Amino acid sequence: MLRTDSLAQYPSAMERHHTRPDPAEIGKFPARCVHCRANIPVRPRVKTLKDLEPLTTRLLEIQHLNSAASLLDWDQETYMPAGSGRARADQLATLQGLAHDTFTAPEIERLLAQWVDPATGLPPESPDDAWDEPSRALLREVWRDFSRAKKLPSEFVKRLRRECSLAQQVWAEAKEKSEFRKFLPNLRTVVALKQEEAQYLGYQDSPYDALLDSYEPGMTVAQLNPLFATLRKRLVPLLQQITNAPISIDDTVLTRAYDTTRQLEFGRLVLTAMGYNFDTGRLDLSAHPFTTSFHPSDVRLTTRVYENELAACLFSCIHEGGHGLYDQSLDTERYGTPLGESLSLGIHESQSRLWENCVGRSRPFWRCFYSYLQQLFPEQLANVAMEQFYTAINRVKPSLIRVEADELTYNLHIMLRFEIEQDLMEGRTRVEELPDVWSEKMRSYLDIVPGRDAEGLLQDVHWSLGAIGYFPTYTLGNLYAVQFYNQALKEIPGLNSEIEAGRLTVLKKWLNQKIHRWGRTFTPDQLVRRITGGPLSPEPYLAYLEEKFGALYQLKAPG
Amino acid sequence: MLRTDSLAQYPSAMERHHTRPDPAEIGKFPARCVHCRANIPVRPRVKTLKDLEPLTTRLLEIQHLNSAASLLDWDQETYMPAGSGRARADQLATLQGLAHDTFTAPEIERLLAQWVDPATGLPPESPDDAWDEPSRALLREVWRDFSRAKKLPSEFVKRLRRECSLAQQVWAEAKEKSEFRKFLPNLRTVVALKQEEAQYLGYQDSPYDALLDSYEPGMTVAQLNPLFATLRKRLVPLLQQITNAPISIDDTVLTRAYDTTRQLEFGRLVLTAMGYNFDTGRLDLSAHPFTTSFHPSDVRLTTRVYENELAACLFSCIHEGGHGLYDQSLDTERYGTPLGESLSLGIHESQSRLWENCVGRSRPFWRCFYSYLQQLFPEQLANVAMEQFYTAINRVKPSLIRVEADELTYNLHIMLRFEIEQDLMEGRTRVEELPDVWSEKMRSYLDIVPGRDAEGLLQDVHWSLGAIGYFPTYTLGNLYAVQFYNQALKEIPGLNSEIEAGRLTVLKKWLNQKIHRWGRTFTPDQLVRRITGGPLSPEPYLAYLEEKFGALYQLKAPG
Repeated sequence: MLRTDSLAQYPSAMERHHTRPDPAEIGKFPARCVHCRANIPVRPRVKTLKDLEPLTTRLLEIQHLNSAASLLDWDQETYMPAGSGRARADQLATLQGLAHDTFTAPEIERLLAQWVDPATGLPPESPDDAWDEPSRALLREVWRDFSRAKKLPSEFVKRLRRECSLAQQVWAEAKEKSEFRKFLPNLRTVVALKQEEAQYLGYQDSPYDALLDSYEPGMTVAQLNPLFATLRKRLVPLLQQITNAPISIDDTVLTRAYDTTRQLEFGRLVLTAMGYNFDTGRLDLSAHPFTTSFHPSDVRLTTRVYENELAACLFSCIHEGGHGLYDQSLDTERYGTPLGESLSLGIHESQSRLWENCVGRSRPFWRCFYSYLQQLFPEQLANVAMEQFYTAINRVKPSLIRVEADELTYNLHIMLRFEIEQDLMEGRTRVEELPDVWSEKMRSYLDIVPGRDAEGLLQDVHWSLGAIGYFPTYTLGNLYAVQFYNQALKEIPGLNSEIEAGRLTVLKKWLNQKIHRWGRTFTPDQLVRRITGGPLSPEPYLAYLEEKFGALYQLKAPG
Repeated sequence: MLRTDSLAQYPSAMERHHTRPDPAEIGKFPARCVHCRANIPVRPRVKTLKDLEPLTTRLLEIQHLNSAASLLDWDQETYMPAGSGRARADQLATLQGLAHDTFTAPEIERLLAQWVDPATGLPPESPDDAWDEPSRALLREVWRDFSRAKKLPSEFVKRLRRECSLAQQVWAEAKEKSEFRKFLPNLRTVVALKQEEAQYLGYQDSPYDALLDSYEPGMTVAQLNPLFATLRKRLVPLLQQITNAPISIDDTVLTRAYDTTRQLEFGRLVLTAMGYNFDTGRLDLSAHPFTTSFHPSDVRLTTRVYENELAACLFSCIHEGGHGLYDQSLDTERYGTPLGESLSLGIHESQSRLWENCVGRSRPFWRCFYSYLQQLFPEQLANVAMEQFYTAINRVKPSLIRVEADELTYNLHIMLRFEIEQDLMEGRTRVEELPDVWSEKMRSYLDIVPGRDAEGLLQDVHWSLGAIGYFPTYTLGNLYAVQFYNQALKEIPGLNSEIEAGRLTVLKKWLNQKIHRWGRTFTPDQLVRRITGGPLSPEPYLAYLEEKFGALYQLKAPG
């Protein structure tokens, strides 16, 4: 077939020498003239994103379907009338099915087959058929998504979606009644389906790797196991030290009565200072805080607000704001392609954790913002010193519920889930054994055991959604966050003083330049090396925790 | 091709006599056995909606796309951040284009070709190939939609959508600056495109008929001209009589300061009394009130609320509530098919007008609800008698803006637009002449002339959207409303007393039974005859207006 658009690869040749290269030789050097068969003495130009337009136009349509589905999701969590859940589920199933079918249709395969070498997942690298870097990255990532999607039979995708939709409903009822055995048969089905999925996707060492790769491209059990072992070895004793510390922190100041409207006002104030743009964003209420995006010009946050829990609204605003800044700063020009998409769940979470913990729970931040908070709540805070407030928001206390955990114990909740998921996927643990396993691990890591399933293994929605392999990205986010933040402290002159002065956008701009604008141009591993000069590592994070909480709880330096 | 599903048409034959009719003869009587060629002595059963599942499944998917697009629209008018208009337009274009392409794809044509005779637009009527009534109506309406959609070339649909999208932006700017000449070139393009559309769609007498049929199936200029002539002949003199009446009504009570939160509270109270279900609905704010529906279980209203205009929020709530009750009461089982869709814009508008005017501006209604309103606004209304309030909300006063017009003059605004649209489409008036034509007609019908284009021919969004032929449905709604309401007064025992007692749902239930549940089973003409025993007529409406305003303004009976 004559690809007339590619003739433009030989512009000067066409003008000066020959009128038309042989269509069969387009992209080659030398190509021969279709008329006289003589070699055309001009190299084809390096191909760019412009040459990929037949593909990116198609991807953009799929993105519009996905964005519409995301709006349906957002609406479901915020404003949808209670009685229309079933209709919404049907609408979502149609949109998501259509997006999947369009992506895996022969059209995309035909386009990719022209450009990508299936052996490498990249365009062939030769001087005669050259692509620029963005195009190579785009083709690599689209090929990755496409080949993963193609491995899953359409029938399987529908079955998985149906079973998870059912499992989610049963989970909600089971949690409501705090009865794990109600959810057990569905969880067994979900685990079996995820094992099946891993077989379709393929893996080297562990079926769990196939699932991890969905959320954190390239991540494996072989990398995570030593990483979590290091965390376990250092965090469990650190927590014990804190529990036995001479200092005990009183955080009752956070449970005084705080007007909810004013709490939201403060949330908006901090978000605005962070550089979150309300002209292209919103803040609404939902049962569980989340961030969603339909385009960089429409990125929405949600939070929750309770009169007697000041920290809930405050830190969820900052946390979701971190996610929101990432999505608002993605490359609009490359919207709809992987280059305009966020990189991985771990990297996304690094943005929220960096803002929530490294910034939002730091002294420099509160040296600026505490006086605003006091002005909004004089009755509650006028007599509370900033240092007292700072220690209150950093109190470490083992608790049953992951989403309410402090900065330190949070990772132990993740570790427990990671170990359980891995054992389930590798067949070492059966679903029936989970209640005992859960209790035992909680006792071992946190020295606290749930009395009810609702506060134990029924607390998270993830497994009912089939999102096995997702949890580790929360801890990866913590690790990346500290690595990135340490680098920001090195590279941004006087970052702490800027934060103390409320100029949070210097940090936002650094993150824009270093992370947000690149989309999926680099892999997570490439990105962290590019920014910090080294690979993902638990050391900076552990050093950060040991220093921060060592000081706060007046612990003796180890050894 | 063997249609195995249709073998079930001969159940008893298959059991008692032959195992299998000849596939080529399925649906016939007598059909011959594929084995022995003997006649099968059993008539095929009457086919039902069940037999149409391959079609209705497909239609349901298209409906999900349309519902998603409607949510995107709703969100755009209510909660979308200001900065994301362009991205939203792209998302909408993709969804709407996909819905149109899927509907006109060969799959639907192939299915319809099996069942519908193109000459009649119905399944063939023979005792040997019989369909039940719902199936016949469904096939008739799907065929109608499909054949209209197929007549428009895909290229034309895209061009029209693009030009209208552009025209709408220019219109908004032109209205802002009150300069019609800015909008003129775009309007000229839109009119030319609508003339082109009429040629594609085809018509008998006037190109305007082709457009009318989009909004009010079967309606023609030949029907509307005498109808509007009657209205003109009786309403213009009635308005003159009112202007010269001995009585003048003071409505300043409506412009006192009314707390907006309480206004919305009252709106919700009335909607609840009407039977509008907030478990499957919402009430939000938007610049222009509207109703939208994604499924009968998710029907949303919007209103606007101004402190110094009590009527704005109040009557838009009741008006949109009338629309909402229709959409909430459509047949859920038939969702996605024409049988689960509202019938026409005129019939839809009849529901809103009936509630807004026949009920909401009546004495029985306020005998119940006025005391609630007084309780909410004691300072403003404690000393205002119900009768004074009733006359205030029914004051007749010629005004420039259609959406602010009273019950009587409203139709003169529509008449003016109907005449202009007809003249534009039939080539009697050029777009350049519109400012003069507008002023002249305003003077003639309402004795009032706009000083600025923004208050004249730029006030409505319709033409910029390409919605030529839409306006007449507003007046049709008024006419149908009174015809239906008169019938309700006859059929519901003591309807006025029920309303006085606040039991508005007796009326809702009557409308559910008579109109809502039927979807598009009948044509508008069939429906109005079925309910009232006669055709659409301006007489009941004129009698209603003459009686109501004759009494209010103490006019002498004519003659």
